[in-house]
Amino acid sequence: MFNTKSKESSFLLSALTEENRFLKTNDFIHWFNSRETANLFSVEQISFEKLDKWYFEEDSQNLVHASGKFFKVEGIRVHTNFGPFKDWEQPIINQPEIGILGIVTKKVDGIRYFLMQSKMEPGNININQLSPTVQATKSNYTQVHKGKLPAYLEYFLDRSKSTILIDQLQSEQGSRFLRKRNRNMIVEVDEDIQLYDDFQWLTLGQIKRLLSLDNFVNMDTRSVISCIPFINDEMRRGYEYLLSGEPDEIELFDCKLQGFCKDIFTSIIDEKRALHNTDEIISWFTELKTKYYMKVENIPLKAVSGWICTDKEIHHESGQFFSVIAVSVTAGSREVLTWTQPLLKHYSYGLIGFLVKKIHNVLHFLVQGKPEPGNLDVVEMAPTVSCADAAYRMRQSNKPPFLEIFISADPTRIRYYSIQSEEGGRFYHWQNKNMIVEIDDSTLIDIPENYKWMTLNQIMTFKKYNNYLNIEARNILSCLSFI
Amino acid sequence: MFNTKSKESSFLLSALTEENRFLKTNDFIHWFNSRETANLFSVEQISFEKLDKWYFEEDSQNLVHASGKFFKVEGIRVHTNFGPFKDWEQPIINQPEIGILGIVTKKVDGIRYFLMQSKMEPGNININQLSPTVQATKSNYTQVHKGKLPAYLEYFLDRSKSTILIDQLQSEQGSRFLRKRNRNMIVEVDEDIQLYDDFQWLTLGQIKRLLSLDNFVNMDTRSVISCIPFINDEMRRGYEYLLSGEPDEIELFDCKLQGFCKDIFTSIIDEKRALHNTDEIISWFTELKTKYYMKVENIPLKAVSGWICTDKEIHHESGQFFSVIAVSVTAGSREVLTWTQPLLKHYSYGLIGFLVKKIHNVLHFLVQGKPEPGNLDVVEMAPTVSCADAAYRMRQSNKPPFLEIFISADPTRIRYYSIQSEEGGRFYHWQNKNMIVEIDDSTLIDIPENYKWMTLNQIMTFKKYNNYLNIEARNILSCLSFI
Repeated sequence: MFNTKSKESSFLLSALTEENRFLKTNDFIHWFNSRETANLFSVEQISFEKLDKWYFEEDSQNLVHASGKFFKVEGIRVHTNFGPFKDWEQPIINQPEIGILGIVTKKVDGIRYFLMQSKMEPGNININQLSPTVQATKSNYTQVHKGKLPAYLEYFLDRSKSTILIDQLQSEQGSRFLRKRNRNMIVEVDEDIQLYDDFQWLTLGQIKRLLSLDNFVNMDTRSVISCIPFINDEMRRGYEYLLSGEPDEIELFDCKLQGFCKDIFTSIIDEKRALHNTDEIISWFTELKTKYYMKVENIPLKAVSGWICTDKEIHHESGQFFSVIAVSVTAGSREVLTWTQPLLKHYSYGLIGFLVKKIHNVLHFLVQGKPEPGNLDVVEMAPTVSCADAAYRMRQSNKPPFLEIFISADPTRIRYYSIQSEEGGRFYHWQNKNMIVEIDDSTLIDIPENYKWMTLNQIMTFKKYNNYLNIEARNILSCLSFI
Repeated sequence: MFNTKSKESSFLLSALTEENRFLKTNDFIHWFNSRETANLFSVEQISFEKLDKWYFEEDSQNLVHASGKFFKVEGIRVHTNFGPFKDWEQPIINQPEIGILGIVTKKVDGIRYFLMQSKMEPGNININQLSPTVQATKSNYTQVHKGKLPAYLEYFLDRSKSTILIDQLQSEQGSRFLRKRNRNMIVEVDEDIQLYDDFQWLTLGQIKRLLSLDNFVNMDTRSVISCIPFINDEMRRGYEYLLSGEPDEIELFDCKLQGFCKDIFTSIIDEKRALHNTDEIISWFTELKTKYYMKVENIPLKAVSGWICTDKEIHHESGQFFSVIAVSVTAGSREVLTWTQPLLKHYSYGLIGFLVKKIHNVLHFLVQGKPEPGNLDVVEMAPTVSCADAAYRMRQSNKPPFLEIFISADPTRIRYYSIQSEEGGRFYHWQNKNMIVEIDDSTLIDIPENYKWMTLNQIMTFKKYNNYLNIEARNILSCLSFI
């Protein structure tokens, strides 16, 4: 029924395949853990004055690199008409260059494999995490720091060496980055590729399996695989007769999808039973962008009010949110062996969660239209709940909508739960609990104007066009598995 | 074959219908011309110091309104790595508020009619032009200038009074506006509506017919009707068998489409024969946004280098491009009877043109990925050629690509030609020649990296998502007609 020559069906087949002709998942985990000890890697917090090549610029007092490249930590003053907090000041990362997050893929015996990397980052809570083939800032691959070029980069820069399957511009955290975006790429290679020390081939099914582990798969990998489509028009048409019958299970290739896996697949393939059509969602989004503004003004980093600057960190007077720190890193597996850099340190768990519900018998996700100061275009589509400091927000009188439902969710309602880290190259120990909680009509909820029920089919359509789905939403969606 | 209850088929039927039960097209034109004399309207250029409530702000030297609302004329310094001109300074309009361009529609005896307005604007070359039901800036409808509210505005603000058919955020000229966008809306009303003096009901076929006249239909109308979809999935599927047969004509409702009208319809409905698929186009656009930057810095208006500020205008030393002027307006049919305001005056004709070509027997449009300083996201999709000063650019050594093909086009190759004005509320006598020129394989052209052949089906898909199609591209597309 499915044309296995389309890229969508090859992605789907790989997502349904956990059997790896090279390496079983358990053996992979064993190998992965061994990489931790194979490479020297130590991270130490230092005072700002011990930073090498990084300094507080005289006029702006921003934390910058001598080359003018990489990123800057700046201060911003925010004024908005959205939400309970209308005015605040905060540090933020300004990284205007667009980097590459790229995965090389190759078909072996009809199954698509992905070339994944064990990579250490100074902010990782567990040293190494599963990373894309390449994650390179522009400064990185134009060799600002004069190290060697990242391995396999040529497959992303030289069009004659690969076929592009995915190539989308996607945003990162709008609460921490000022309009940062990365190019999320998956490129297919036909030729044989040399396997370097820190790399292995995995199926998408294996990567999805590893996403059930805490802090294993890094944010960049999650961002890239969230862009993968599983369905094209031809597959959708071929499938229509099955859906009309509401089967208890769906057979795909040799897999039987049941329960929540079947619900996910139905929500991806169904185009007819969505509560709102695409034009209605575009109108809703237009209304939000028209109604809400978020004015962002640059201010000197050391002068952000409510934040205290010591010799070792810039932290909020409440002790909440995050702080700016400096670290010194020594590593044996990176392009440069020792370096210092600023990081944003987080203290408590965040919570990122989607409420889901069957409407017209198709799973819908409650999407939030959320303004954040770093968004390019005011509002992006976010999970039902996303807050970097869930415990703190729970103690406040004006809690974010729906947060309580996640905190007090009945375990039988939780469809997905894991702890995932945000990018270890910028964030020190920032962990978010990722949750999907299913409700039915017995849970009565009010839907505020900036929330909308959407099917996965709709969410995946919007995801293709840049600056619709934010990183938190994409991150949870990357964890959805068919097996 | 077509479900006439879908909004798409009702738009299509209206586009195929020039017969109007209320008013024939010729009688409408007669009525329209009579409105010119029915209302007092005079425009006089004045010196900047005679502006009332508008003045050059002391610090910034920008031209601003005392209320801080409406718009500002500012200076910008541009630095880019795109095109032959890497650095320049220019005046630009900053109008951050999102206004409404809205058309009320109603079905009568199964045919959809649009409530259109004869509206005078100070910059119009011919006093009144065919305008949407409502065109209102936020300052307008929040009554900053204390006039009366625009007629019919309630149908756009009060959701209980209408059904939204179209509601999209669309950009305006990125060469003249800093990130300006308007909300383009079409709302359907069931109740009977009182017809005020300057309003008439027209079919979409009549509006399309009027688009063959020079300077008749204003830019805001063109922008709104460019958002209209004619096809949905159901119609596309029902039609597939016909396309496979390559008929000489296509019958829709009672109309026979032949020649270029048939080519347009085929390009809208065909999803299979596009030269590049949507993912390839998104990758191309990602590459352009990654590669090109356009750094825009605010500078004092009176200090823009290369521009000369006199008491009556700010003009370029070459006499080219445009100038900033001030006018005094007296009108009997506007909310406020007399006012003064700045306008951007243009001297010569611009040229906006699409090259089209049949590829795989489906009409493709040569779309340009064009960075402009006012774009929200660096690059938008533009016509093959768009330049505000075609004759001047033809005399230069580095002409824009393809301009020559339009200037010297064989008349038998010209599929559409008309002169259209840009928004008369901001621009004084800015006229663009709008052209569509069809080529075949006998015309050999090189396609630079920032150009891509696309079908109308693809262009209309991108158009729905904000900040893809620029105003110049939407303007020409609005002129495409099936009759």
